Amino acid sequence: MHPAIERLQRLSARRADVIRLAGGLPDETLFPVSALARAATEAMQTAQALQYGWPEGSVGLRGFVADRLRRRGASVQPDDVIITSGAQQALSIASHVLIGRGTRVDVGRRAYPAALELFRGHGAVLVDGDCEPSGSATAVHYVMPGVSNPDGVDTTTRRRARLLASPGAIIADEAYAELRFDGTLPRPFLVDVPERTWHVGTFSKTLCPGLRVGFLVPPRAHRLAVLAAKEDADLQAGSLAQTVLERFLAVDDFDARLERTRAVYQARAARLFAAVRRWLPEGRVVEPEGGFSLFVDLGTVGDDVRLLALAIRRGVAFDPGRLFVPKPERGRLSFRLCHSAAPISDLDEGVRRLSLALADLASEVAGRLRLPGRATATSRSS
Amino acid sequence: MHPAIERLQRLSARRADVIRLAGGLPDETLFPVSALARAATEAMQTAQALQYGWPEGSVGLRGFVADRLRRRGASVQPDDVIITSGAQQALSIASHVLIGRGTRVDVGRRAYPAALELFRGHGAVLVDGDCEPSGSATAVHYVMPGVSNPDGVDTTTRRRARLLASPGAIIADEAYAELRFDGTLPRPFLVDVPERTWHVGTFSKTLCPGLRVGFLVPPRAHRLAVLAAKEDADLQAGSLAQTVLERFLAVDDFDARLERTRAVYQARAARLFAAVRRWLPEGRVVEPEGGFSLFVDLGTVGDDVRLLALAIRRGVAFDPGRLFVPKPERGRLSFRLCHSAAPISDLDEGVRRLSLALADLASEVAGRLRLPGRATATSRSS
Repeated sequence: MHPAIERLQRLSARRADVIRLAGGLPDETLFPVSALARAATEAMQTAQALQYGWPEGSVGLRGFVADRLRRRGASVQPDDVIITSGAQQALSIASHVLIGRGTRVDVGRRAYPAALELFRGHGAVLVDGDCEPSGSATAVHYVMPGVSNPDGVDTTTRRRARLLASPGAIIADEAYAELRFDGTLPRPFLVDVPERTWHVGTFSKTLCPGLRVGFLVPPRAHRLAVLAAKEDADLQAGSLAQTVLERFLAVDDFDARLERTRAVYQARAARLFAAVRRWLPEGRVVEPEGGFSLFVDLGTVGDDVRLLALAIRRGVAFDPGRLFVPKPERGRLSFRLCHSAAPISDLDEGVRRLSLALADLASEVAGRLRLPGRATATSRSS
Repeated sequence: MHPAIERLQRLSARRADVIRLAGGLPDETLFPVSALARAATEAMQTAQALQYGWPEGSVGLRGFVADRLRRRGASVQPDDVIITSGAQQALSIASHVLIGRGTRVDVGRRAYPAALELFRGHGAVLVDGDCEPSGSATAVHYVMPGVSNPDGVDTTTRRRARLLASPGAIIADEAYAELRFDGTLPRPFLVDVPERTWHVGTFSKTLCPGLRVGFLVPPRAHRLAVLAAKEDADLQAGSLAQTVLERFLAVDDFDARLERTRAVYQARAARLFAAVRRWLPEGRVVEPEGGFSLFVDLGTVGDDVRLLALAIRRGVAFDPGRLFVPKPERGRLSFRLCHSAAPISDLDEGVRRLSLALADLASEVAGRLRLPGRATATSRSS
């Protein structure tokens, strides 16, 4: 991560007076604490919860994931699923197999920052496939079907068609897909191109992130390589977390939970979107269809990290836009705002404070233009 | 892992009639189930247990680790410690930073198989530093101070001196160090050469593996690279597991627990060692000083994987010796036996069954020598 941004985010997280529209954390009031505590008490009665397990993870969880994918038309068996330490590890293992120095990875216009960092770490060249010259081949596509991060919207029909027509591997990250506000689910790439789809999912957004339970359905030809990579990485996902989750899911109505969860985030998204329209009328923004966030592009130049520093002074934090793009555009003023974790009654005030920070930034820039700083003056006179 | 060995181990794990001297699992009767369940119930009352956390992990756990290392003379602060998803992830992150294609890694005579696989996966050339021509440089050393896996003995004085004198990085894996039967702890490499020591530890052997909580103390110059690698890998170790462990440790007398735990494994090791002396008197074996296992070298040629297949038929499983050596020696008959998980009353019977399997293997070999198989006879006559 960008060190200055990380410093600022850590600072903002320590300050109770800062409204955090940053970070992509779920609403803690949605965590089913009592049910999870009951599941944990039960789980502890089994040696399985505290002992080593196999690298592919709990057969019960793999069955749960496979069942839900089969309902959506994919031909997935429990043995096709590998439980991972969160969706991030699923991405990490897919990258390990697919991406080397110079691999061209199409991440679309904007994408999840930790995926971009991961791909860069493997030496990938990140591109937006929609802007590539026609005929140019990208080896790997990264896509968030149903609900994208940061924009919170579905994959465009154009991009979807391009991915299905292209020969490259597809990393389909469905971290937010079950949180589309209309309750529809995208057609899994697994249905159409199973031989080159790396399907990624997680319970972090729909239930809670603290368990660190995600999953990966790699193409069958890669299953053994993926299991070896999983063992190399950390042997297995946590037994306690898996057993707790398995017990919890055995008695939970997960679809009813999703419905309630979607309604909460839909109300939050509407509130944030209205606040952006109200306080940042000049911002380009699309109304989110799901997920935790929206993206605002002010269409002007400006330093998004400086803006974050000023915003924290005003009592609000956000995620600078440069984190989300394949090739950071210098000086473009844009940002992700998350509606998911701050008290819903704070969202309007958070965006109002951000508008004040934008005015602060504008004054700073105007001041620099009118009054050369002392360092510059000194160097001129010397 | 070797596919045939993995198939056999999975087979043996499903069969209740097989005495498992394989796998290196801890004794489940030592898991403090009630105390962990209480800790889990408490942990769930905090949002922290279910929410995202920072990549370096819980400050309480990092403090616990740092305190214990300071007691042993190392200058370690909580900020030097990074909580990992088990010791395996600590090794994985260290490898990511240290090992590339062709890197010579000194792993000693025998070492932990998942470390060897991991290093090989990064393209390492594995060597036993003690057998290298003097003056040849190895970039990285992997060592298990205090208690080695598979032998269960301390690092030799010679190897320790060589590592301190060599300029290479040292991955010091203390997974079993607190389980030395005499209760002594090795002097941490961190004390003498902190600038090139990657200190690895875990709660998997001393408490339970199902939490997947380990830790890494990298050289300070590498801390930021390690944090970036941790984020790429899985964002953070499990919040639930960390919070449960933190609550548990706040009320547990961990040193008293270690004392009881060591006594249990010491009794198990003595029973297994006696059984090996009784049933495999021809085997070369060193009495373990700690840990979960011992290593038997029969000093003869023979197929250790075929022996495992025959042993499972006789009702016992072990880990073939080829898994533990830097360069698998073809046809060397050796194996690791674990005393840690099987009922202690089964250990003698397990080794007796193994001696029967060895006799089976000898008969098979003798049979092949005396009676050419039908395929051979047919091909001669055709």
